[in-house]
Amino acid sequence: MLGDILNSNARYLAQQLANLGIAHHYQTVVGDNPLRIQRAVAIACDRARLLIVTGGLGPTPDDLTMATLADFFDVPLVERPEAVADLEAKFARRGYALEPSSRRQALLPAAADILPNPVGTAPGVIWQPRAGLTVMTFPGVPKEMKAMWQTTAIGYLQANGWANGVIYSHSLKFWGIGEQRLAQQVAPLLAAANPTVAPYAGEHDVILRISAKADSIAEAKTLIAPVAEKIRAISGLYFYGQDDDTLAGVVGQLLSQRSQTLSVAESCTGGGLGQMITAVAGSSSYFWGGVISYDNRIKQHLLGVDEQVLMTEGAVSESVARAMAVGVRSSLGTDWGLSITGIAGPGGGSETKPVGLVYIGIASAAGIQVERCEFGADRDRDSIRQCSALTALNLLRLSLLKSKVTGR
Amino acid sequence: MLGDILNSNARYLAQQLANLGIAHHYQTVVGDNPLRIQRAVAIACDRARLLIVTGGLGPTPDDLTMATLADFFDVPLVERPEAVADLEAKFARRGYALEPSSRRQALLPAAADILPNPVGTAPGVIWQPRAGLTVMTFPGVPKEMKAMWQTTAIGYLQANGWANGVIYSHSLKFWGIGEQRLAQQVAPLLAAANPTVAPYAGEHDVILRISAKADSIAEAKTLIAPVAEKIRAISGLYFYGQDDDTLAGVVGQLLSQRSQTLSVAESCTGGGLGQMITAVAGSSSYFWGGVISYDNRIKQHLLGVDEQVLMTEGAVSESVARAMAVGVRSSLGTDWGLSITGIAGPGGGSETKPVGLVYIGIASAAGIQVERCEFGADRDRDSIRQCSALTALNLLRLSLLKSKVTGR
Repeated sequence: MLGDILNSNARYLAQQLANLGIAHHYQTVVGDNPLRIQRAVAIACDRARLLIVTGGLGPTPDDLTMATLADFFDVPLVERPEAVADLEAKFARRGYALEPSSRRQALLPAAADILPNPVGTAPGVIWQPRAGLTVMTFPGVPKEMKAMWQTTAIGYLQANGWANGVIYSHSLKFWGIGEQRLAQQVAPLLAAANPTVAPYAGEHDVILRISAKADSIAEAKTLIAPVAEKIRAISGLYFYGQDDDTLAGVVGQLLSQRSQTLSVAESCTGGGLGQMITAVAGSSSYFWGGVISYDNRIKQHLLGVDEQVLMTEGAVSESVARAMAVGVRSSLGTDWGLSITGIAGPGGGSETKPVGLVYIGIASAAGIQVERCEFGADRDRDSIRQCSALTALNLLRLSLLKSKVTGR
Repeated sequence: MLGDILNSNARYLAQQLANLGIAHHYQTVVGDNPLRIQRAVAIACDRARLLIVTGGLGPTPDDLTMATLADFFDVPLVERPEAVADLEAKFARRGYALEPSSRRQALLPAAADILPNPVGTAPGVIWQPRAGLTVMTFPGVPKEMKAMWQTTAIGYLQANGWANGVIYSHSLKFWGIGEQRLAQQVAPLLAAANPTVAPYAGEHDVILRISAKADSIAEAKTLIAPVAEKIRAISGLYFYGQDDDTLAGVVGQLLSQRSQTLSVAESCTGGGLGQMITAVAGSSSYFWGGVISYDNRIKQHLLGVDEQVLMTEGAVSESVARAMAVGVRSSLGTDWGLSITGIAGPGGGSETKPVGLVYIGIASAAGIQVERCEFGADRDRDSIRQCSALTALNLLRLSLLKSKVTGR
């Protein structure tokens, strides 16, 4: 409640419930206060048949979940010998004795089933405190919560008739087109009921999410496929990938298909372009490396940029982007050379060269291309740098798509 | 409710409310459904005097917040001429006409004050629909919500007697020590009531958060200062910075104080180290650049690493880390050369060289140092790469602290 923690548990559980086809209508967050926890539980029990609680199962005094739930449903807490044995074994493995504060974690509401914790100490429960109400408790630590969800909760829900059908989603990703314009292009599809199509603005890209409700994931995929096909046909080259695809991953696939190699020369991104490219496992098969030419001396000495050009046109110029791309391609001996030079800000801008002005160069056997971009209008340093690297990858993607798939 | 979005708005607002000293007890998340929104609003109005709503103000059919609130409080929606004018001006600036769907954003509950949106289109409201209840609405887009909060909401709350006292926090950041061990070192301080001291495990570092409740931020700072001083004295070199400090920023300060320069040679991090260093505005005064030597050919040709050493000891070895640091320092002509070579995985590991094995080299006039690290136990590719870059920066920090502050 102080804003220290981003609630990633809620997001994870929402995704998991959607996958199981369990309708999920409310999330409530409440602090470590018995009265407020009980009020939140009272409201939840009135409107839901399944209550999932995370957090407050640990050994410290502010871990109140079990005691508060037992109190609310007027059931005693009972120390469970099997939970004590499990805690003792876990502490012994770490070379500690089980202290009273930690032993408290074995106190669980009478008649509740233990939800084992395979990675941490505190167990949870699966519990029917009333007819028609199931309560599940998990620790707040995401790794423990997820492990308990995967190893026990999913199976329990499936075996007890909760998981009826699935809601399955497939995302299509777009670069270089706004959310509104894309939504207009696919407008008729946005009105459909199953699958639904919803546009989202990503941080830099735009996403269309196709969601189908069906009896199985296979059936949902069958509903989704023709809609995805239609959208891809309408959106053309704006479409760059799907689901977990990244621009760097797509560029990597295109390079691999062509058995071609890449190097980069970075100024304002300072290594961020190389980092994105190498975030893809296996990128060493097509990415050889690059030069971070942050200082002009490095642009001259390692990339062969002409000192005269740096003086007359400045480091952020079409000529320098061109020379950097050509220089890194030739120096590293790769098929493609990709360069970025720009002003990331907050300082360093001028009237003719504002913050956010970025030149991107692409050199290959087919020639040299330089693109001038302005990213500064409402972006900060970090965002300008990210946008520069992603735009460079997208330009390379478009160049690769124009080049033939043949061996070198 | 499908788990697409991490609720960063709730975290931001929680932090902001804490800064204003406004007690914040419940957060509720509900889907775009009028009945469920109304139920959530009914519950909130029963237990709170201030209701902050985010999301659902846009131009699409699933944007239901204003209509649902107006319906709940039985007040008509009225089109506001000043809001229409603002929308028209914003659309005109982008070269579009104001369509009916977007014009709908100017429909606001009667008697509500407009909460202007300086960065997006949809306005919010500040509204007293009942005695003793204030409702504020914001768009869900974090950038717009934050801008509206900063430019209007904070001032409104302060001017209307909401902000009584403050809860102010100061964070101390540590590298190379675990949460539990640090907590033991400062154990007596953890029991204090005002300021409180709470340990948090960051993604890679550990944070001690000192929070004071006081009448003003100045008074809170006075309470916090001696506690912070005590912690810094106890924790020694593990302490690396405070609040928004980053390892890269701290290294930059140390380099600037010494008027010294830095270059990097990166293998498994692929540019990530350079990116971290250049994330700091003004880093061009001490960071000259580097070589991303992802492929062994680049290690040889641009850094002068001996082919024989690469063959016999392998790219991930003490000798290669050493040669890379020395090579980049000499090739780029900087005071310091920092190198990373390792196995980020998921493939490429072996029994003697497991995934997560990383060598970090530091070369300077004072000599050469190589550190062997193993990050693989429970980290993925992304985390191993981040940890490698951050550990390299921390080693450089420690080396810089040992070197004297003098001009070159």
